Amino acid sequence: MPVTVVGSIAFDAVKTPFGEREKMLGGAAVHFALAASFFDEVRVVGPVGDDFGEEQLDVLRRRGVDVSDVEHVAGGETFFWSGVYGWDLNSRDTLETRLGVFEQFEPKLSEQARESDVLFLANIRPDIQRAVREQCTGARWAALDSMNLWIDIERDSLVQTIASVDCLILNDAELKQLTGKPNFVRAAREVLSWGPPGPSAIIAKQGEYGAALITAEGYFSLPAFPLEDVVDPTGAGDTFAGGVVGYLAAHAGQAPDEEMLRRAMAYGTALASFNVEEFGTERVERLTGEEISARVAELERLTHFSDSPVSLRG
Amino acid sequence: MPVTVVGSIAFDAVKTPFGEREKMLGGAAVHFALAASFFDEVRVVGPVGDDFGEEQLDVLRRRGVDVSDVEHVAGGETFFWSGVYGWDLNSRDTLETRLGVFEQFEPKLSEQARESDVLFLANIRPDIQRAVREQCTGARWAALDSMNLWIDIERDSLVQTIASVDCLILNDAELKQLTGKPNFVRAAREVLSWGPPGPSAIIAKQGEYGAALITAEGYFSLPAFPLEDVVDPTGAGDTFAGGVVGYLAAHAGQAPDEEMLRRAMAYGTALASFNVEEFGTERVERLTGEEISARVAELERLTHFSDSPVSLRG
Repeated sequence: MPVTVVGSIAFDAVKTPFGEREKMLGGAAVHFALAASFFDEVRVVGPVGDDFGEEQLDVLRRRGVDVSDVEHVAGGETFFWSGVYGWDLNSRDTLETRLGVFEQFEPKLSEQARESDVLFLANIRPDIQRAVREQCTGARWAALDSMNLWIDIERDSLVQTIASVDCLILNDAELKQLTGKPNFVRAAREVLSWGPPGPSAIIAKQGEYGAALITAEGYFSLPAFPLEDVVDPTGAGDTFAGGVVGYLAAHAGQAPDEEMLRRAMAYGTALASFNVEEFGTERVERLTGEEISARVAELERLTHFSDSPVSLRG
Repeated sequence: MPVTVVGSIAFDAVKTPFGEREKMLGGAAVHFALAASFFDEVRVVGPVGDDFGEEQLDVLRRRGVDVSDVEHVAGGETFFWSGVYGWDLNSRDTLETRLGVFEQFEPKLSEQARESDVLFLANIRPDIQRAVREQCTGARWAALDSMNLWIDIERDSLVQTIASVDCLILNDAELKQLTGKPNFVRAAREVLSWGPPGPSAIIAKQGEYGAALITAEGYFSLPAFPLEDVVDPTGAGDTFAGGVVGYLAAHAGQAPDEEMLRRAMAYGTALASFNVEEFGTERVERLTGEEISARVAELERLTHFSDSPVSLRG
C-alpha cells in the first residue's frame, strides 16, 4: 500500500577518505523513497529550489516514485548540506547547512499523498512533521526519524510529534539523549511508556553495528551487513528506514507483528549496506530486487547460530 | 580439556554512575578463569603480591580453578588499576595503573599448566605472552587478547606473538589500529593473511554492540545481550573470552569449525552480559549453569529472523 514520506530533498557535498562529490542528490526523503520504492508506491513531499531539475526528479521517477508533491519554490535554493568524514567513517563534521527552501516550508499535501496508508516523517523540524501527520488522515501506520538538533532545541515539539506515530526510528545515542537514560534499551522502554497514544515499536539505529527493535513484548537485534569497503555512509539511516517502512507498507494488510518487524529490519539492513558502497544514491539507483533478496538471505546465514546442549560446571 | 590462562590478576578500583568499589578482585586472567570454569578445568598463571590472600584465591577455588600457578612474590604489590566510567559507560578514564609484581614477571609454568590443551594469552606485555606460548608445548589451540597500549609501544613483538596463536580476540577499534585499515572486516582479513602460521579466526569485540567472527571461509555477527541495567563493564571482554575459549576447550576433541565458534561466541556473550550486571566478579561468582543456558537460549530467540519471500519492484 502506498507510502508518503516528508523530509529533506537535498544536494550534498561529501568528502570521505575514499573520494568526494561536490554536488550530489541527497536528503532523507530521497534516500528513503529510493529504498522504499522496491516494495511499494512512494509519494515524496518536500520543497526544492530553482537548482533542482528534471535530472534529479528522473532519478526518483525511474524507481516509480510519485514526485507530484515535490514542490518547486521559484527563486529558492534547494536544501544543501556538506560534510567531511574521518578516516574510518565513524566521525563526521558538518561544514555547511543551508536550509534554503526549507526555511519557509509549509507542507500542503495533495489528496493522494494524504491518503497513503503508511507515512514516514523523515528528519525535519518536528512541527513540520506534525503538520504532515495531521494532514495524513488516511495513514494507518506512521513512523518518524529525528536528530540530536531537534532534541536540543525543539524537544517539547518533538515529544508531541512522537506521540502521533506508531514507530520511532532513532540513533541509539539520540534515544539516550531524548530520554536522559544512560542505556538505549531503557531509553526505548521509556518512550514506549509515554503512550498511548505513541509508538508501540522503537528501532534504535546503531550505525555500523546494526539496529535493535524494542517493543512492549519483545526485543530483536540485527547486526549490520559486513562490508570491507564502505565509501560514503550518507543516507544509510534513511535508506534503512526506507527498507523497513517499505517492507511494512507492502504487508500493510496485516498489523505489523514482531516477526514482520524483524523481517522488515533485515530488508532495511540489506538496503543500507548497498547505500554505503558508493556515494549518495549512486548504488541504490541501479540496485535490483534480486540483489536485495540475495543479501537478506546472506544476512540470515551470517547471523544464525543454534545452541547445542553443553554440560556446564556449577 | 584443561585451559591455561596467563594474564593480569589484579585489584581494581572502579567508579561508575551506579556505584563504586575501592578495591575489588579483578584482572583479565581472573575474569577469564571464572567464565571458562563453567566449561572445563582452568589453570591460572600470574603473579600476585603480599596484599593478595586466601580470600581472593578462594573466589577462584570455589569455581574449581587451579591456582597452583598463581605465583606469590614476597614483598610485592598486586597489579592495581583504577578507573572511572562516563554517564553511559561508553567512555572510561584510567586514573592509575600500578604494575607492581608484573614489572619483573617472568613466567615459569608448572608441568600441568604447560600441558593444557587450550591456552589463552590474556592482555599483558606481548613478550610475556610469547614466553608462555613457547612453554605451552601441549597446547593444541591458543587464543590471544591485547590492547591499544601494546600496539602503540610494542607492535613488532605483538605481531610476532599473534603469529603463534590460532585465534585473535581484539576490540574492533584495535584491529583497525593494528592493521591501519579503516574497516574492521578488512582489518581482520589482513591479520588472517599474515599466516600461516597465525590466526585462522579473528573475533572482533564491539563492546555494548556485540562481537563478530571473521574466518577465511566465513563471517558471523552476534549482538550483545540486551540489558537495561549495566553497572560495571570492567572485565566484560575477558569474561566473553572465557566463555568462548572455555566452550571450545570443552569441545576440544574436535577442531573448532565455524558452527562451534558461533556457539562459543553465544556462550561468551551470555557470560559477559552477567559480568556487567554487577561490580567486578560479584555476579559471575554466584552464577549458575542454568542461568547461562537460559540466557544463550534467549539470545538465540532475540537474534533470530527468517526471511519470507516478498515481491520486489525492479
